[in-house]
Amino acid sequence: MSTFNVELKKVVDDSYEIEIGYDLKNKLVSDLEKGLIGNIKKIAVITDSNVRDLYAKEICEAIVDAGYSLDLFVFAAGEKSKTRETKAKIEDAMLEKGYRRDCAILAIGGGVVSDLAGFLAGTFARGVPFINYSTTLLSAADASVGGKTAVDTPLATNLIGLFNQPRKVYIDIETWKSLPQRELHSGMAETIKHACIRSNEMFLFLEQNMEDIYALKKFPCEYITENNCQIKYQVVMKDELESGLREILNLGHTVGRAIETVSDYRLLHGEAVSIGLAAEVLLAARLGYMSEEEADRVIALCQKAGLPTRIPEYIDREALVRKLYTDKKVRDGKLRFVLQKGIGDVVEFGPNVYSTPIEESVAREIIMEL
Amino acid sequence: MSTFNVELKKVVDDSYEIEIGYDLKNKLVSDLEKGLIGNIKKIAVITDSNVRDLYAKEICEAIVDAGYSLDLFVFAAGEKSKTRETKAKIEDAMLEKGYRRDCAILAIGGGVVSDLAGFLAGTFARGVPFINYSTTLLSAADASVGGKTAVDTPLATNLIGLFNQPRKVYIDIETWKSLPQRELHSGMAETIKHACIRSNEMFLFLEQNMEDIYALKKFPCEYITENNCQIKYQVVMKDELESGLREILNLGHTVGRAIETVSDYRLLHGEAVSIGLAAEVLLAARLGYMSEEEADRVIALCQKAGLPTRIPEYIDREALVRKLYTDKKVRDGKLRFVLQKGIGDVVEFGPNVYSTPIEESVAREIIMEL
Repeated sequence: MSTFNVELKKVVDDSYEIEIGYDLKNKLVSDLEKGLIGNIKKIAVITDSNVRDLYAKEICEAIVDAGYSLDLFVFAAGEKSKTRETKAKIEDAMLEKGYRRDCAILAIGGGVVSDLAGFLAGTFARGVPFINYSTTLLSAADASVGGKTAVDTPLATNLIGLFNQPRKVYIDIETWKSLPQRELHSGMAETIKHACIRSNEMFLFLEQNMEDIYALKKFPCEYITENNCQIKYQVVMKDELESGLREILNLGHTVGRAIETVSDYRLLHGEAVSIGLAAEVLLAARLGYMSEEEADRVIALCQKAGLPTRIPEYIDREALVRKLYTDKKVRDGKLRFVLQKGIGDVVEFGPNVYSTPIEESVAREIIMEL
Repeated sequence: MSTFNVELKKVVDDSYEIEIGYDLKNKLVSDLEKGLIGNIKKIAVITDSNVRDLYAKEICEAIVDAGYSLDLFVFAAGEKSKTRETKAKIEDAMLEKGYRRDCAILAIGGGVVSDLAGFLAGTFARGVPFINYSTTLLSAADASVGGKTAVDTPLATNLIGLFNQPRKVYIDIETWKSLPQRELHSGMAETIKHACIRSNEMFLFLEQNMEDIYALKKFPCEYITENNCQIKYQVVMKDELESGLREILNLGHTVGRAIETVSDYRLLHGEAVSIGLAAEVLLAARLGYMSEEEADRVIALCQKAGLPTRIPEYIDREALVRKLYTDKKVRDGKLRFVLQKGIGDVVEFGPNVYSTPIEESVAREIIMEL
């Protein structure tokens, strides 16, 4: 018996820029010309059936005019398309058109498009450069930092995928104007969550500027976008050192994800998270981690954002309580919640443990009241 | 317009050990007990229908006896199973059995098993620990270093996948005894290739010890295994610095891959590579990069290993010449070959360029003669 040592220690630099602004296609083209993807001249553009005519075609024209060759790969809009099958179909279409190692992938769309395209880019020819052009408030808040990509399977959401950092992210605030109002409001839930876990100042800003944000005024939209990136970045980065912090991004998601499933997706993700935030501030207030007044302010902000904060009548509340046990934070059969400590901070239950065990009876009480 | 910088520079240590020996299941169990996969107690074992009864069941029993829980996921043996569909089926079966983030994956088998299982491990819950227990000479020579994993699609082999370094590799020489003779011989082709590109000493050793290797004697088998690891490691490592060197692993594969396809896989990979090696030494000799005598020695060694060195009668040679153009080294429509410089070295055509442009007429001449 003998041993051979494979030494594979190296410095990896996955740093990238997020460009925040209005109508960024010219900036994208000039970045390509400056070498964003090296000498690659062939780009597979992945988008969905909604975004194709709204933005993707126009962006593609600008890229083609700059001398790149590209093809547009379009799938039906919606979470239901975020599957291994859609990924395989696009891979086959790319191979059919002669794409091999020497290409890059550009995602244009929201979180579903970037999750799918980022995963595809990470496994096409064992990884080709990936650029993300974000067209929704939700993906600007959620998908621009962290590198998580994935698809859903019949038995699990977001479980098959990988970490794949993009070469660059473009957050085009201009595109938010075409979002249906309900989608825009839903996208605000993750922004409110970021303020709740890490920034009292951002929370105040949201209280004072919600109308201007929804009117897509430049300063407040750029402000929240930068703060979303900053907060998510700090949490994700710190997590690389002291594993566990990333869990705080789960605020509102324990009840949120459960209610989203029990509603059979009648509720949008952000709507469900908003109700989840309401449940968790009530819980935090009951356990003395925040004042009643602070809890009311969180609920009021969600309402101001046009989001629901009560469990709809049609939800079976006992089914919801049972569903809580499928949450990934459950340990030894015990429910665990991320809880706010006032506004802008979270409860650290133990060293590097940011979820607090909660008796089912207490969780049930809140759910029955809400 | 503003810019947010995501700084993601870090030191990554993917180092691992390759254990080389006979019947390594007890060593595997003791490594698990010493923390090879941390606190993880749930292992998904992936194998094929040949290896299941030969080795996998026995290894699984030893692991279960040590207090781990595991399930065995078996797919039909053969390259035809190395697909996205097989991967998805195993993923679904794992999810069905409750596997989530907190598991590890153990591949037991040859290159098909490790390619598929390594890819699956890299995308299951965005990456779980992966251990590789190799049971063929080919995978010992080829798949133990480099981290390449992939599946095939109807339009491309090995194009969908990723780099995923294992936690540890076990090369169990004992298992080679159950390989059909033709498979064992086929596996020798990559070993001969390694000697041809990097080690005159290893080449001499192969000339002198082929019978003992095929008798699975301890010293010569461990010697070639260590040298295979060493050579592949040096080439792959250096390639990370000066991109391009990895191309030399393509020796024999230009004609080899083409003939494998044109034969419609009647030839095993190693058999096709052996004929490819023969073609390329004839070419190298004709161009003055090696002597006729050296070329004869390479051909003689392949024959000694029980490998074919002439193109079978049933191959359409004109189709073979055309097929050469689908090689990934083709640039600007021109054929390129990796060529030996004597024995143990390769031609460096230009700085960091290890493939040499060859006129079609010259390539055709060789193919018509062979």
